[in-house]
Amino acid sequence: MSRAVMPPDVVVRRLPLYARSLRYLLHEGVLSVSSQELGDRINVTAAQIRKDLSYFGEFGKQGIGYDVERLLEQIDQILGLDRSWAVALIGAGQLGEAIVRYEGFRAQGIHIAAVFDANPDKVGKPLGTIVVQHSDSIAQTISARGIEMAIIAVPADRAQGVADVLINAGVRALLSYAPTVLQVPAGVWVRYIDPLSVLHSMTFYLARGE
Amino acid sequence: MSRAVMPPDVVVRRLPLYARSLRYLLHEGVLSVSSQELGDRINVTAAQIRKDLSYFGEFGKQGIGYDVERLLEQIDQILGLDRSWAVALIGAGQLGEAIVRYEGFRAQGIHIAAVFDANPDKVGKPLGTIVVQHSDSIAQTISARGIEMAIIAVPADRAQGVADVLINAGVRALLSYAPTVLQVPAGVWVRYIDPLSVLHSMTFYLARGE
Repeated sequence: MSRAVMPPDVVVRRLPLYARSLRYLLHEGVLSVSSQELGDRINVTAAQIRKDLSYFGEFGKQGIGYDVERLLEQIDQILGLDRSWAVALIGAGQLGEAIVRYEGFRAQGIHIAAVFDANPDKVGKPLGTIVVQHSDSIAQTISARGIEMAIIAVPADRAQGVADVLINAGVRALLSYAPTVLQVPAGVWVRYIDPLSVLHSMTFYLARGE
Repeated sequence: MSRAVMPPDVVVRRLPLYARSLRYLLHEGVLSVSSQELGDRINVTAAQIRKDLSYFGEFGKQGIGYDVERLLEQIDQILGLDRSWAVALIGAGQLGEAIVRYEGFRAQGIHIAAVFDANPDKVGKPLGTIVVQHSDSIAQTISARGIEMAIIAVPADRAQGVADVLINAGVRALLSYAPTVLQVPAGVWVRYIDPLSVLHSMTFYLARGE
């Protein structure tokens, strides 16, 4: 980080959206983009983009805009995506299967490196290209392979137990699909994918005709 | 709403988490809960809960706490979940299948009422209990049945086209799994489920050892 100030988490969460838009632009053969054009694509103002990026240094030139390829490289580096991160997936059910097959996870700095399930019928069988291991071996595999990220796709009542095992084994970032809030120690990051709550936060507006 | 002040969206997004925690408490037979206890379960301070709820009126009693069942009823009503909302699902692939089978969607104010796909091999076949319709019939079905919510589970390059058709037919709330930002008119709500961006917002911290 080129400055001492740590950016707010909301800024960090927007960086992947900038990177994705820049990746599309690059794919389309666009070499240069203004903060206005970039902002229009992701419904953020030009001023917000400039302010967000200012946490990380100087980018682009006044009146010329950003070099798409260069800015993408820089953001990928800021996000730690100049390397690939091994991710463990816990839960090889319908959801786990959709996650493994999701093509987005096969690119851009993330790869699913191990899959675990407690169901003996799943263990030893391939999910995509990965053979499912028994949940009993989570701790050993995570430690041995130095895996720091995990996706939790187990029922809500098992999620905290799984999280505890993962964290004890060295995982520092959790993405949980289980509809329950996890208790984690300081230094561990946790985010949720929670479609039902997201839908419920919109029925609020529909119900009042907003 | 018992007050004129519209709550910030961040407050609206927390209400479903409160409701879920209250539902668990009720299930566990807990009749009364303090804002402290409720907050501990979802990593929100007691003060935040009291402030959030204050947008919607007076709840609980000083020193006694909240009546779990009553507060849950009130929050469900605030969220418009005292009725059930029909949701259309666009995309009957692996992801669409996982969504249809997700048990969470079979409860609590939401039901998937129609499924569409552009692939002729999918059309006419059941996905869960619903027969997949061709995407050509989205507009007609949505209008005829008065469906106001939809889940988009199609590839990124088709998402905006699908959103346009849905919105023209009367949909006012979109949950999109497609990794692209949708342009929607005022009065339409859109939220995203974007696991890759969420993971990327955590590699930021891991890469710097935070």
